[in-house]
Amino acid sequence: MKLKKVQLTPPQFLMCGFGITIMAGMLMLKLPVSTYDGISWLNALFTATSATTVTGLVTVDTGTVFTLFGEAIIMMLIQVGGLGFMTFAVLVILFLRKKITLKERLLIQEALSQTSIGGVVKLVLSLFIFSLIIELAGMVLLATVWVPEYGWMEGLHVSLFHSISAFNNAGFSLWSDNLIGYVGDPLINLVITGLFILGGIGFTVLVDVYKKPRFKKLTLHSKLMIVGTLIINTVALLFIFFAEYGNPDTLGGLSLMDKFWASYFQGVTTRTAGFNSLDIGSMEESSILFMMMLMFIGAGSGSTGSGIKLTTAIIIILTFITYLQNKSEVSVLGRTIRNNIVMRAFSITFAGFITIFFCLLGLTLTDPELPFLEVVFEVFSAFGTVGLSMGITDDLSAPGKIIIIILMFLGRVGPITLAFSLATIKPDRIRYAKEDVYTG
Amino acid sequence: MKLKKVQLTPPQFLMCGFGITIMAGMLMLKLPVSTYDGISWLNALFTATSATTVTGLVTVDTGTVFTLFGEAIIMMLIQVGGLGFMTFAVLVILFLRKKITLKERLLIQEALSQTSIGGVVKLVLSLFIFSLIIELAGMVLLATVWVPEYGWMEGLHVSLFHSISAFNNAGFSLWSDNLIGYVGDPLINLVITGLFILGGIGFTVLVDVYKKPRFKKLTLHSKLMIVGTLIINTVALLFIFFAEYGNPDTLGGLSLMDKFWASYFQGVTTRTAGFNSLDIGSMEESSILFMMMLMFIGAGSGSTGSGIKLTTAIIIILTFITYLQNKSEVSVLGRTIRNNIVMRAFSITFAGFITIFFCLLGLTLTDPELPFLEVVFEVFSAFGTVGLSMGITDDLSAPGKIIIIILMFLGRVGPITLAFSLATIKPDRIRYAKEDVYTG
Ligand SMILES: [K+]
Ligand SMILES: [K+]
Repeated sequence: MKLKKVQLTPPQFLMCGFGITIMAGMLMLKLPVSTYDGISWLNALFTATSATTVTGLVTVDTGTVFTLFGEAIIMMLIQVGGLGFMTFAVLVILFLRKKITLKERLLIQEALSQTSIGGVVKLVLSLFIFSLIIELAGMVLLATVWVPEYGWMEGLHVSLFHSISAFNNAGFSLWSDNLIGYVGDPLINLVITGLFILGGIGFTVLVDVYKKPRFKKLTLHSKLMIVGTLIINTVALLFIFFAEYGNPDTLGGLSLMDKFWASYFQGVTTRTAGFNSLDIGSMEESSILFMMMLMFIGAGSGSTGSGIKLTTAIIIILTFITYLQNKSEVSVLGRTIRNNIVMRAFSITFAGFITIFFCLLGLTLTDPELPFLEVVFEVFSAFGTVGLSMGITDDLSAPGKIIIIILMFLGRVGPITLAFSLATIKPDRIRYAKEDVYTG
Repeated sequence: MKLKKVQLTPPQFLMCGFGITIMAGMLMLKLPVSTYDGISWLNALFTATSATTVTGLVTVDTGTVFTLFGEAIIMMLIQVGGLGFMTFAVLVILFLRKKITLKERLLIQEALSQTSIGGVVKLVLSLFIFSLIIELAGMVLLATVWVPEYGWMEGLHVSLFHSISAFNNAGFSLWSDNLIGYVGDPLINLVITGLFILGGIGFTVLVDVYKKPRFKKLTLHSKLMIVGTLIINTVALLFIFFAEYGNPDTLGGLSLMDKFWASYFQGVTTRTAGFNSLDIGSMEESSILFMMMLMFIGAGSGSTGSGIKLTTAIIIILTFITYLQNKSEVSVLGRTIRNNIVMRAFSITFAGFITIFFCLLGLTLTDPELPFLEVVFEVFSAFGTVGLSMGITDDLSAPGKIIIIILMFLGRVGPITLAFSLATIKPDRIRYAKEDVYTG
């Protein structure tokens, strides 16, 4: 008897891996030992998807519904879905060595700045160890606040959970008001944001900075990510500070120092981590709209975060400027961006908008009675696997929850990965005559 | 004494022309003879902008506030802003012959499928005459319904007004419920839609079809416009038919035949004409969302309509498919689309989204108490110079109205034209080494 081997392309493999992890997670969360009073299949699927895709949207309160065992499963799903996403995928692709062209393999190696396959495996392993060390360090630092507050057992437990949740950009918290209770605590603010910024900037950037500590020597990708992160975080901080300054339900009642910490935290967390130290449902409409844009942009490529990615947004802006300047080649920091990369950036963005549009359309049919702004915010949050909510997650109808589940899944693997896993690639041999079309 | 000549680039010239027309229109609408009981400066500016940009959003009821003289001014502004937009611009550019490169001039000639400048002028004039004949024919056909209903004077007057409003995709009506009263009238439906489809498909397509009546011989642009218009109109008809079928406030109470006419009319009008035979404010949320997409896409290049244009949307979809197929050149119907055209399509779309985003952000600050869905709809409607509204136009605050005025202006001239008129073009001489950035 001979079994026919099923050959999966890397995108198909990735999708299947995610799907299997989510299903396994759902089954484990359904175990009686995971919850105090049980949980519905749909809520178990929702929680498993939210954890594996490191989103952080919740239909049940994590801290009160799940037992310590259940919380451990969620923590594991977050770890597999966040940290595992990139490293496992790379390992799998390298070990399988099927359907992967030399060009693709070289690209992966290039992405990790290594030259031999043995070196790549070693690198992935060291990244894995590095991440665990960071998570432990985060836990220790958080424990200095939470052990005195909650005692040893409970204090270490919440510190570990939040450290893993932060580094993997999951945004899950054990408190029903997330981190609102620590809005002005400098250590919590700095450690949590430090963890998710490290996790969200992308592994290639971390490796690059580790190897070449001087900015000038970094790859173009690392330079763009570092400069881009600084700029967008500063803009976000300022926007939220000024938009919410007088809002009595958010910054209004805080001291100037706490106002700063809250603006910093909410500005930085919105692109993908999804923790909140302010009440999202009480924020000004302008902040909500601005945060939707941040959630759409997201974090770095090959990171624990999602969204269209910061570099994608940068390339789109650069292309726009290039077009206005009547130039034909997109260039930045003394380097030219290949045309194929530009097409990829636009395709990713387009796929993102289309995905959001159709899911939103679906939700207007399944949940027409929910307020439109809240629904749009939820959709952007799920697509960016951010996990911020204006408070309607649990009010969604069952079909509505399924749409959000699909959206979190698509947001994490990327709609373009789905499209690739379905697309049949045709050879690009025939050349046609060029003819212009008027567009403006 | 010597006056220094101010040299304007074509985009700057276009913007100035529009601005001056709007200002002149505002002053004329402020004349006591234009209105029965006067009108505020802001509402006069709003009406003049809405007419000149062929939008059709109104803060005051056109039929009851303006005298016959005022209505004639609105009609004139519509004619100048719609029909005049392309023809005047082409004429002006050709006559000025300043700051216009040979390449640009050739492009214009190509756009109109002519080879000599004398021929272009002749062509523009014949297009002008052709348009007037179409408008007169439209008036005569509409009069067969409206003269029996309103008598000779009033009947001819409303027929002329609606014919001009339709051909120029303005969507202004003399009835406060627009065309809801004629929801099932086949002649009104066919004549009005016929007029705005002819006006909205783009002059180059009309000329092309006139010259080469066989489909195979048409330019790629004409083929895409004709096929695209058929497809998008059919999809829109079906969507609205099924989404609204059971809605008692829209299609629910109508006969099957009237349901068809209403779906056809609303599906076709939404991309830019902006008439309505259904109550927009009562439509389902899903229809509203779908209509926002239609309003964003808009009509044809060089037409009396706006939006990012149908061909722009087609090229974006084609590019996305091309990218998924791992091809490097975008091709359709046996022709390759130049890379520069692809970049232009994406830049136009990006500029559109950015414009909408910032205007929406502005409106959340100026009018936070208005419902979000209604405001988003209004913004898309103004950007696409469509003129459909869920009923909040008059409820906008003064700064809110100014934002919509700016948006109508930008929507008509195109945000990319504004950007071009501000951009300084730098030579594209330096070539950099290529370096990749990870985006997905
Ligand atoms: K998250
Ligand atoms: K219109």
